[in-house]
Amino acid sequence: MNQPPFRPVVAFMTDFGYGDGDVGVMKGVVLGIAPDAQLVDITHSVAPQNVASAAWILAASYRYFPKKTVYTCVVDPGVGSSRRPIALSAGDWLFVGPDNGLFSYVLAEQTLHEAVELVNPAYRLPQISSTFHGRDIFAPASAHLARGVALSDLGPRLALSDLYRLDLALAVRRDEHLEARVLHVDNFGNLITNIPLSLVPDLFTCRAVRLEFPAHNHVLTERRRFFADLPDNDEQEARPFIYADSSGYVGIAVRNGNAARTLHIGYGEIIIGTIEK
Amino acid sequence: MNQPPFRPVVAFMTDFGYGDGDVGVMKGVVLGIAPDAQLVDITHSVAPQNVASAAWILAASYRYFPKKTVYTCVVDPGVGSSRRPIALSAGDWLFVGPDNGLFSYVLAEQTLHEAVELVNPAYRLPQISSTFHGRDIFAPASAHLARGVALSDLGPRLALSDLYRLDLALAVRRDEHLEARVLHVDNFGNLITNIPLSLVPDLFTCRAVRLEFPAHNHVLTERRRFFADLPDNDEQEARPFIYADSSGYVGIAVRNGNAARTLHIGYGEIIIGTIEK
Amino acid sequence: MNQPPFRPVVAFMTDFGYGDGDVGVMKGVVLGIAPDAQLVDITHSVAPQNVASAAWILAASYRYFPKKTVYTCVVDPGVGSSRRPIALSAGDWLFVGPDNGLFSYVLAEQTLHEAVELVNPAYRLPQISSTFHGRDIFAPASAHLARGVALSDLGPRLALSDLYRLDLALAVRRDEHLEARVLHVDNFGNLITNIPLSLVPDLFTCRAVRLEFPAHNHVLTERRRFFADLPDNDEQEARPFIYADSSGYVGIAVRNGNAARTLHIGYGEIIIGTIEK
Repeated sequence: MNQPPFRPVVAFMTDFGYGDGDVGVMKGVVLGIAPDAQLVDITHSVAPQNVASAAWILAASYRYFPKKTVYTCVVDPGVGSSRRPIALSAGDWLFVGPDNGLFSYVLAEQTLHEAVELVNPAYRLPQISSTFHGRDIFAPASAHLARGVALSDLGPRLALSDLYRLDLALAVRRDEHLEARVLHVDNFGNLITNIPLSLVPDLFTCRAVRLEFPAHNHVLTERRRFFADLPDNDEQEARPFIYADSSGYVGIAVRNGNAARTLHIGYGEIIIGTIEK
Repeated sequence: MNQPPFRPVVAFMTDFGYGDGDVGVMKGVVLGIAPDAQLVDITHSVAPQNVASAAWILAASYRYFPKKTVYTCVVDPGVGSSRRPIALSAGDWLFVGPDNGLFSYVLAEQTLHEAVELVNPAYRLPQISSTFHGRDIFAPASAHLARGVALSDLGPRLALSDLYRLDLALAVRRDEHLEARVLHVDNFGNLITNIPLSLVPDLFTCRAVRLEFPAHNHVLTERRRFFADLPDNDEQEARPFIYADSSGYVGIAVRNGNAARTLHIGYGEIIIGTIEK
Repeated sequence: MNQPPFRPVVAFMTDFGYGDGDVGVMKGVVLGIAPDAQLVDITHSVAPQNVASAAWILAASYRYFPKKTVYTCVVDPGVGSSRRPIALSAGDWLFVGPDNGLFSYVLAEQTLHEAVELVNPAYRLPQISSTFHGRDIFAPASAHLARGVALSDLGPRLALSDLYRLDLALAVRRDEHLEARVLHVDNFGNLITNIPLSLVPDLFTCRAVRLEFPAHNHVLTERRRFFADLPDNDEQEARPFIYADSSGYVGIAVRNGNAARTLHIGYGEIIIGTIEK
């Protein structure tokens, strides 16, 4: 089998939705500079201007892409203001977007090698709008990086400690309890919590796990290894259960159902967890 | 004109939706193994866990892709359970996904050459989650097939008669009547029935066609060759009509309108058909 | 840095939505003919059969793609009727679709070099359905053009003056007033008007701008350069403001909000504008 030629990957994540031409326009700009790039969508349905949600979706995704992938991330409520357009190298990948916290998980999890501010006009479109830096700044920067331009050519180095980082707000232990919340509701209505599996390596071997939604009087204690992992009693099928989500966090699901709708729970909801070893 | 180089095609169909990063993650995994692959989406909006609907959408699509296309299909309510992850060669194409009936139309329509169970760890990700085999098993298997790995390298052969197949539930003739139902509602609200055009080759030449929705007191008898094929009387524009859908099945549409909304009819609805030759 | 090889770009815009396999099928057809093409989606969420809306989305997008990009545009309520399937060369690009006005902005803005009717059976699929010319005519024509087939091989030349063009209905000046309307509502709920920025080059330097929605008693006078360009008084954050949209038209937005929902305004709504120099 021949080794196929290397082709640079540019992966896109935005809150632009699918109804406008904006994502296509960014790709058109990339292909004008890097005609050989492989273009991949992570998602464009990030809740409008929800930087924290976007940061988490990126966190659950980026490790699975090839080395040198350029992530072009545009969830950018501050576009046109003084927030800086940046590119950075962290772990095995490159990241391009506004300096507003989108890369907070990446920075917490990977070695940060270098970051620059995207001000070199040679690597921007000739005209810069005040409202669409995805097209005018981030797409061309990503394409040039995909072609092999050095990060340091795109603009001056930034102090690494100076990058904007969100409070990741992972679940915290207080005595026997975990103070947690819902980080994401996926397409199946599964509730992904901010409890990393590394915090509860004993999810299936400990004596008991209890997740409570105090504002809703819901208490969950049942654990399952996968969605079709059903107890003998069929009537229990619709009962929400706790599982290890593939994103690396504790999740809550209903078999053949929608936990968010069953529980009337959404993004951000508070959870009190208890693990009995 | 030069012959462009062969590039393997990997086509994706899932019920993951467009709001999570899961489809992007699968593509990232594929590109890490087969950097030159052409990645195409069939759809990711299959109704969650509706295997029958997914099987039909695949059936309406697969013939139009190049030979050797690898279809990566993940509508997988049984993920993590004992249902088998499989890959198979049928007709001119390769198919990868759970053994839950997704490929039932393909198996009914094409010569099945070979099928294997995806258990060889050399062609999976190092860690296998219980809830995301699309990422951990199906994407890497598809990518290796796209690169030219033999099907038989991915795992042991399966008896072809042993593959899980859905009851396709095509329309059946009972005396003068067809017992049929709605297979799909498309983006325009057109109702696609389970009546193959091959069952009514005389759709436009027979004396009369009658489709009745017994639960709704709707009876349709008008036929049109295309959506803008309008009788002189403009007032009739909003009346639903029968046509030959490009999927190869009888359809019901409203010109410049939405038949599903006009008739209050959805997926699965029962139809009684009558053809007068 | 090596020059990466040229790869032809085929960009797709349809009203097929994302729930059916139709867009994937068109791409499968293209890759069977032009395996090396770069496939990009502009959008597939055009309001069903809204040719005017599609024409505008294309207008806001096409300039940003590489030269020789082939735009495959299928918003086609007249499919199967006598409306002509066409391909044309305008500016630096190629356009393929029905002759129903989809390319009206392009024709108004670019030099039209040549147009043909797509009737040569050598460049169509062997069987032509009455309802899916995207698959049977437009996708193969686009792929052959992407491979370098000459436009004139696809069918007979059309008189350029004979192409169907929409009334673009840009805003018009009447005395001191602009008669305008809403052209597009984007993913953020921003209202894009049909007032080209070229008509009000003084948007930020003139004495006053006033946009009135007469049917709703809304009057807007505040201008901002970008979404986060906030006056000191935080209470004003939710007030809609006027800005220069990146599409090249005057827009109306609400910071961190949705102008369409705030104002209860949608596609097509009438606006009376006043500019005081």
